[in-house]
Amino acid sequence: MKEKDLKAGFLLNFYGELLTEKQRDAIEMYYDEDMSLAEIAEHTGITRQGVRDCIKRGEALLFEMEDKLKLAERFEEVKGKVAEILTLAVDIREKNIKYAMSSGIDVDIDKIIKLSKEISE
Amino acid sequence: MKEKDLKAGFLLNFYGELLTEKQRDAIEMYYDEDMSLAEIAEHTGITRQGVRDCIKRGEALLFEMEDKLKLAERFEEVKGKVAEILTLAVDIREKNIKYAMSSGIDVDIDKIIKLSKEISE
Repeated sequence: MKEKDLKAGFLLNFYGELLTEKQRDAIEMYYDEDMSLAEIAEHTGITRQGVRDCIKRGEALLFEMEDKLKLAERFEEVKGKVAEILTLAVDIREKNIKYAMSSGIDVDIDKIIKLSKEISE
Repeated sequence: MKEKDLKAGFLLNFYGELLTEKQRDAIEMYYDEDMSLAEIAEHTGITRQGVRDCIKRGEALLFEMEDKLKLAERFEEVKGKVAEILTLAVDIREKNIKYAMSSGIDVDIDKIIKLSKEISE
C-alpha cells in the first residue's frame, strides 16, 4: 500500500455510509486512529491481506464518489469562506471596541462569530 | 404518480451525477422545467410510461442517497446559518453608517456580505 492518503479518512465523513461496516471500521482505524495494517488485523481477526483489500475497496468507493459528486470539495470551499468571515468578524469586533463603541454592532458581531464557529466545527 | 415532490429536483444538485443521463434529463424537465410526463415523452421520444419509470427510478436513487448521506440537509443547515450571518452583516452596516462611522468596519462588513452572498448562490 502506498503512503497513507489522508484524504480517504476525510472523505469518510461524507460518503462513509455507503461503505460496509467492515470497510468503514478498517479505514477509520487506519486513518483516524493511525493503526498499522498488522494492528488492525490483530484487532479485527481478519488477515493482514484481508484488511488491506478491505481498505482498498472502501477507499476506491470513497474516491469514486467524490470524483463524481465533489461534495467534499464544495463543503471545503464553503468552510474556507466561513473562515474568512470569522477572521473579518473578529477584526470588526476589535475595531468596534477601539474606535466605534457601538453596543448594537457588538451584539451582532458576537452572533456572527458564534454562527461562523458552529459552521466550522 | 403522486404530486410532484420538489425535493427530488433539489437533490439532483447533489447526487445527480449518480443517475443515468436519461434519468437526470427527465427529472430536470419534470421538476426544474415543470413539464408534464406527456410533454417529456414527446420531447424525448420515450413513451409516457417510460418517462414515468425513468423518473421514478432516478428519484428513488436520489432519496436513497440523501437518506444515507444527508449531505443536502447538512448543506441546507450551513446555508441557513450563512443567511443569518448576511442579515446580521447588513444590520451592522446600517448601524455603522448611523452611529459608528468607522471606515474600517465598513470595509470588513462589505467583505462579509460579499462572502455570505457567494456561499448562498
